[in-house]
Amino acid sequence: MKIGITGTGSYLPEIITKNEDFINHKFLGLDGSEIPNSNEVIIEKFQAITGIAERRYAKAELKTSDLGFLASEKAIADAGINKEELDYIIFAHNFGDVEKGKIQGDTLPSLATRVKHLLQIKNTSCVAYDMLFGCPGWIEGIIQAKAFIQSGMAKKCLVIGGETLSRVIDPHDRDSMIYSDGAGACILEADSKKGEILAHASQTHANGEAYYLFFDKTNDQNGCSDTRYIKMHGRKIYEFACSNVPQAMADCLNKTGISIDEVKKIFIHQANEKMDEAIIKRFYRLYGKEVPEGAMPMIIKEMGNNSVATVPILYDRVRKGNVEHHSLKKDDVIIFASVGAGMNINAIVYRY
Amino acid sequence: MKIGITGTGSYLPEIITKNEDFINHKFLGLDGSEIPNSNEVIIEKFQAITGIAERRYAKAELKTSDLGFLASEKAIADAGINKEELDYIIFAHNFGDVEKGKIQGDTLPSLATRVKHLLQIKNTSCVAYDMLFGCPGWIEGIIQAKAFIQSGMAKKCLVIGGETLSRVIDPHDRDSMIYSDGAGACILEADSKKGEILAHASQTHANGEAYYLFFDKTNDQNGCSDTRYIKMHGRKIYEFACSNVPQAMADCLNKTGISIDEVKKIFIHQANEKMDEAIIKRFYRLYGKEVPEGAMPMIIKEMGNNSVATVPILYDRVRKGNVEHHSLKKDDVIIFASVGAGMNINAIVYRY
Repeated sequence: MKIGITGTGSYLPEIITKNEDFINHKFLGLDGSEIPNSNEVIIEKFQAITGIAERRYAKAELKTSDLGFLASEKAIADAGINKEELDYIIFAHNFGDVEKGKIQGDTLPSLATRVKHLLQIKNTSCVAYDMLFGCPGWIEGIIQAKAFIQSGMAKKCLVIGGETLSRVIDPHDRDSMIYSDGAGACILEADSKKGEILAHASQTHANGEAYYLFFDKTNDQNGCSDTRYIKMHGRKIYEFACSNVPQAMADCLNKTGISIDEVKKIFIHQANEKMDEAIIKRFYRLYGKEVPEGAMPMIIKEMGNNSVATVPILYDRVRKGNVEHHSLKKDDVIIFASVGAGMNINAIVYRY
Repeated sequence: MKIGITGTGSYLPEIITKNEDFINHKFLGLDGSEIPNSNEVIIEKFQAITGIAERRYAKAELKTSDLGFLASEKAIADAGINKEELDYIIFAHNFGDVEKGKIQGDTLPSLATRVKHLLQIKNTSCVAYDMLFGCPGWIEGIIQAKAFIQSGMAKKCLVIGGETLSRVIDPHDRDSMIYSDGAGACILEADSKKGEILAHASQTHANGEAYYLFFDKTNDQNGCSDTRYIKMHGRKIYEFACSNVPQAMADCLNKTGISIDEVKKIFIHQANEKMDEAIIKRFYRLYGKEVPEGAMPMIIKEMGNNSVATVPILYDRVRKGNVEHHSLKKDDVIIFASVGAGMNINAIVYRY
């Protein structure tokens, strides 16, 4: 049975925050130490490594579930399905609905339930649940939906990735400039005529790596120690990703028997442009190849890293002709790949 | 293929809090109104309806993921499997790791990753993720694991339900006396020789019902409005559960073709003894029958409602002979059922 993505949708928040908007921040090291560089230099270095020039933040009145709803409406319309036929709503996120200015995430009820509520779906057999798997959550949601379809438990699933990272970041941490908000969604269907999942792979590295991304207090030692923010050991993550993601992608591709030369595009989670370039280079090197021109569409410059939302937004925008110099045509072989908190890695090889 | 539960484990926290320990609380209505009764009367009424006399709270140094780990160790030992053979770790919860005295839930990394870390599982192909589905999360986790096994993606899965509700309750809300802490876990295996899932059913009611359980400020109008707690519309939930759970259980049983007379035990989520009795009575009434003696083991009196942990703890304790007058023997037909935030309902018919 062909299981494919028959519709996509995304929502990019309206508020554009540029790198220069961080110019008056007091940046400190993880241990509270002063950073010897000026903010101009910090920001310049930041952009050189990550490729991020600006990022999107959600308006105060919108929460993660609202972003997910807005993306889902578009995905349902794009697939041309009746929303009442959905068997599952799977919402991948990591922090719940965080109101602007508050510190508690709200997951009661689940964000998937909130989306179902906003979509006004009446069918009670449509099961709505949330899934936490770090940044690779949306890809993992597709893998779960595939299992439900293969086992006969579902025919049509809505898979959402949404996050408002702007509400869990420490203003005194340089890494906070990476994070952004957004949501993407897709419809996965049995007996798809629009495309097909060919293989998938997932990993959780939870020994030394479990706390490479973690939740902790502000870098400002005078700050309120009860409020915690998203924190990371950036260097360790960089090395981990470069060492492990290329082989995971290759293992996934090798399951299909398809040649690397047939791969047209790689939709990879965008946390850091230099890191993504290094991963893709190493991936092609496993096959003794150079990275072909145009293999990796990137929108990190304008979007930053919005976690679970990054891959679905990127894919939706390329599909719909909204990323310059990138397009997809029927039967193109593409790869989705992600890496993030867990540490989790996953990949899907897909025939468009 | 027979997919069955081959091992179980549970962890009941050490701190016993009795109803009389609430005698000096200042209870208020949801709208902040004074409650005309004395605390003696409030507590007496509470116990008459819910059946709860005491509940368990986790020690300060333990978080939800720790409780889940302690239950998981026992489940792995009980199943007699090698932990490195696990394909999935699925952790059902709703609030993350909440430290005692703090208000933020921590889900970075996921609780499933934390358990994998504590179990020191090295196999990176063991995929660890968290799942939020209200109180029915543990049963839903089993349904997801079943899908992974049926679709060939897994052979052995660890499914955990854990929660520390004592850390998300409002001291000014009578309903807070319901909630407690705990964790339960099981191993689900392909080609099981110990039992078999015969059928399952799941529902999400997200129209008028989506916010029957919700996250909101304290009932004390003078309290800090930024801190939110678990809140519920108890009367609405009672009516919803009595109207919908019996039919969902019957739909599930009817899929198997097994007679109601063959059902030996019902392991139902315990939020309220009177509600559970009403549900079971209506369930049997759908078949024109009275509830047989001993059909519904209950430990709510000593345990309270620990959400996702309630059904797995109850099942583990009955299996291991720790609930007086209740036991299971090979081939007994049993039903697992739950209802909670979402509003979600699910059931599994199982041959022991």
